[in-house]
Amino acid sequence: MLGLMQDWPLLCHKIIDYAAAQHGSREIVSRSVEGPITRTTYAEIHMRSKKVAQALEADGFGLGDRVATLGWNTARHMEAWYGIMGVGGVYHTLNPRLFPEQIAWIMNHAEDKAIFTDLSFVPIVEAIADKVPSLRKIIVLTDDAHMPKESKLDLVSYESWIQGYDGDFAWKEFDENTACGMCYTSGTTGDPKGVLYSHRSNVLHALISAQPDALGMSSNETIMPVVPMFHANAWGIAHSAPMVGAKIVNPGGQMDGASIYELLDTEKVTFTAAVPTVWLMLLGYLEETGKMLPHLKRVVIGGSACPRAMTEKFQDVYGVDVVHAWGMTEMSPLGSLGSIKPVYQSLTGSEKLDLQEKQGYAPFGVEMKITDDENVEHPWDSKTFGRLKVRGPAVADAYYGGAGAEQFDDEKWFDTGDVAHINEHGYMQITDRAKDVIKSGGEWISTIDLENLAVGHPDIQEAAVIGIVHPKWDERPLLICICKEGKTPSKEEILAFMDGKIAKWWMPDDVAFVNEIPHTATGKIQKTELRKQFAEYVLPTA
Amino acid sequence: MLGLMQDWPLLCHKIIDYAAAQHGSREIVSRSVEGPITRTTYAEIHMRSKKVAQALEADGFGLGDRVATLGWNTARHMEAWYGIMGVGGVYHTLNPRLFPEQIAWIMNHAEDKAIFTDLSFVPIVEAIADKVPSLRKIIVLTDDAHMPKESKLDLVSYESWIQGYDGDFAWKEFDENTACGMCYTSGTTGDPKGVLYSHRSNVLHALISAQPDALGMSSNETIMPVVPMFHANAWGIAHSAPMVGAKIVNPGGQMDGASIYELLDTEKVTFTAAVPTVWLMLLGYLEETGKMLPHLKRVVIGGSACPRAMTEKFQDVYGVDVVHAWGMTEMSPLGSLGSIKPVYQSLTGSEKLDLQEKQGYAPFGVEMKITDDENVEHPWDSKTFGRLKVRGPAVADAYYGGAGAEQFDDEKWFDTGDVAHINEHGYMQITDRAKDVIKSGGEWISTIDLENLAVGHPDIQEAAVIGIVHPKWDERPLLICICKEGKTPSKEEILAFMDGKIAKWWMPDDVAFVNEIPHTATGKIQKTELRKQFAEYVLPTA
Repeated sequence: MLGLMQDWPLLCHKIIDYAAAQHGSREIVSRSVEGPITRTTYAEIHMRSKKVAQALEADGFGLGDRVATLGWNTARHMEAWYGIMGVGGVYHTLNPRLFPEQIAWIMNHAEDKAIFTDLSFVPIVEAIADKVPSLRKIIVLTDDAHMPKESKLDLVSYESWIQGYDGDFAWKEFDENTACGMCYTSGTTGDPKGVLYSHRSNVLHALISAQPDALGMSSNETIMPVVPMFHANAWGIAHSAPMVGAKIVNPGGQMDGASIYELLDTEKVTFTAAVPTVWLMLLGYLEETGKMLPHLKRVVIGGSACPRAMTEKFQDVYGVDVVHAWGMTEMSPLGSLGSIKPVYQSLTGSEKLDLQEKQGYAPFGVEMKITDDENVEHPWDSKTFGRLKVRGPAVADAYYGGAGAEQFDDEKWFDTGDVAHINEHGYMQITDRAKDVIKSGGEWISTIDLENLAVGHPDIQEAAVIGIVHPKWDERPLLICICKEGKTPSKEEILAFMDGKIAKWWMPDDVAFVNEIPHTATGKIQKTELRKQFAEYVLPTA
Repeated sequence: MLGLMQDWPLLCHKIIDYAAAQHGSREIVSRSVEGPITRTTYAEIHMRSKKVAQALEADGFGLGDRVATLGWNTARHMEAWYGIMGVGGVYHTLNPRLFPEQIAWIMNHAEDKAIFTDLSFVPIVEAIADKVPSLRKIIVLTDDAHMPKESKLDLVSYESWIQGYDGDFAWKEFDENTACGMCYTSGTTGDPKGVLYSHRSNVLHALISAQPDALGMSSNETIMPVVPMFHANAWGIAHSAPMVGAKIVNPGGQMDGASIYELLDTEKVTFTAAVPTVWLMLLGYLEETGKMLPHLKRVVIGGSACPRAMTEKFQDVYGVDVVHAWGMTEMSPLGSLGSIKPVYQSLTGSEKLDLQEKQGYAPFGVEMKITDDENVEHPWDSKTFGRLKVRGPAVADAYYGGAGAEQFDDEKWFDTGDVAHINEHGYMQITDRAKDVIKSGGEWISTIDLENLAVGHPDIQEAAVIGIVHPKWDERPLLICICKEGKTPSKEEILAFMDGKIAKWWMPDDVAFVNEIPHTATGKIQKTELRKQFAEYVLPTA
């Protein structure tokens, strides 16, 4: 027997309808790509996104068409998203930091038919347009006055493109499982893989992430999503902020400390979200200038592990609460958040920081488990670590085109590729990447833990640990170090420093000193490259 | 093109799974029907609700079966709900305040196959069981020691019924639109009408109502739902509290001021919800005893309009924020909440109270409009009032069995039967019931506004306004008053008092003094009865 409740499909354009109806005068402030700070409202964004829908439809774009966006966080970018989704199209966010060939590869894989691009990214589009045969419309997110004087491409300015329309448009109605958004994972190994969000998954993710113990989104907040819209939907804020009527402050393309500080201060931002790198720049700026953060109450930090010192500084020096979060493009992206449960409310000082180093706990709508390689579940005892697997309505079920099928099992568990442990109260901590963890005699050793310990030695500047083939134990850890300038510690000194701080069998079998450790574009240690360099290495214990 | 996100159906038992996994040690405290305060946890409730599921299945109950519950808010009642839902059954809450014949009528209409009853309601079940032929199992929510010594019925105690099971039960999987709950509206006119909730509607309602600007549910709250589970799902708290891991304090059947105060104080309740009558008793008790509410931060008041003086007292005397809410059984029930938007944050004193007299604004997931009788929409100008219509994923699409079909239109708008106006920022205020509003010369006159004005006269104790047939204007208002003891104001004095405070054409055409005004069981003026009494009345203006 079915219930007798309304069939009210969860469609993303209902979010912007709601924002316009109930929070129409609430502001969206953006640092524009052209320079000046612009101000608009949800009512205005709603009306203009309907014009986008009309223009798209007039140009022959509709249900299922992938429309790329290559832009910073701005009001126009938001309008484009809602307009695309409102005709049943799929916004496909492109990361401008990728190489042009990667962008072209991704666009071809997605078969993008149109692109909205920031003025500053027109050169990228010019470099790749002729390599993307499906592309037949290029809209530059600016007005005629700012358009490039000349281009080899047929460009149209956003403002002139939508100006003939009146906004009198009825959003298309369709199944809530219809695709609405697309984002490719950066793919450190292999080709990028496309995640295809549905209207349902975005709306549910917004409802889940807005909860008090998740992002805590309220109409009374002023929210600055520094995290870009091309980075997993700006962690969903492009949907959750209008859903609650929060004021948005978009930083555009300027993420240096001074620019971020200026907006935090003048717009009285209460809540912001970004990766640690951004906060390093801001904290550096604050230290140089002696400025404070009187309006900011909460900062969500994710994308990579939040350093303990950063949490400490935000909380103790600036009085800003830190919420350490973890997620993935495949999870829309939020997977866990470090809100403090009642059992930990009395923690202070280093004990509180210990808790906050963890990636937090899963909200309702995210199921989590850790398993061994045979899919046997591990206990939540804060020490046994295993492959982290997740399930939920905003978790990918497959990649576009079918790549990476081995990451999804029959019971819909998605293998995150991370290795983690979970404590008795559900707080999860990432300890490694599955491909990096060292499997020694059937037990797992966390390379990240060893690296963190090694860099604690006063003479070590950077450390990386990889597994080296071993005749008896399958793999044993090799510690690879760069020493600080002028320092020449011995292997024995380093190992003595680590001894006693970890289990005996975790101790590296050897230490190698190098002058350079290879990194990815985003600053992570490139272990695939290191493994190649040390492919012929023979451990003294072998 | 469909998205590639997981098909993770929104099923209510996933809520209790989540609560057990992530907030397993969080307490549920209940004033038991037997007397003592009992304490349990989400982990325990989860395990015992699985035993309920096993016992139900063993007794042959399953998908689609309606299982009645006749109980106060207790942990056992919660376990019963989740157990019933977990086998695909439908919990059907019965209001013990109804006459036994009404309860029997409702049970027969729903064809309930089993019933969970509180010990204190066994006499009701004994009175009606033989009138409900579908009923074949009666479980008393107590243990063997407390069971009635003798009964003409075949009763089993809840504890003995579940004790043979081990809780090792896999919840049933089914479509999220499957029915899971049922509640009949009280029906002041005509027969009660059944609302049939689905798993999807309950989960979405919980997600929507937990938002910071709605109920603001957090794991760090201690929540006392005084509003009964048989009153529209305890306003959803039986789902939203476990969804976030909040501590629950159940008041059982004792809602007098002293009992409520005792739990608020000893359990340090931070948030509570109930109808105004309950708060009148609590405020009376506090005044008598001089006690304060140091732990309570927020109270949600709904079910009927919250008197201004009550809001004022909670806020100014006790430092407790009031959220005035409005909803209906047909809306799961929340429709609007009086959280303060940024535009009103600077209001204080009487201006703030003016705003808080309104029923608040709709959260995302509730669409609202006001129309005339021809379904033409009225503007949101805080004065034009019309029929209040709503739409959303937790709004009924029909009544069970098809009654009341005229309340649902082709575009799924549900006519609430209320008349309201909405202001430019979305704040809605109920001004009347549609069946009571007076239609004079094509314009509408609010009887509630006239009544509120009339009782402001120092000699008037109670006032009711009804429409009387008029040859020229169709209807004109008649003011019916009870005077305070020893007072005998003239018609002219009363009308002079009202004159100038309302539009000229709203002025009553006549005043009738009576000794009694008929009321419903819940204390509302019975206007159908008044209209019968004054059916032959001829206005002096006619």
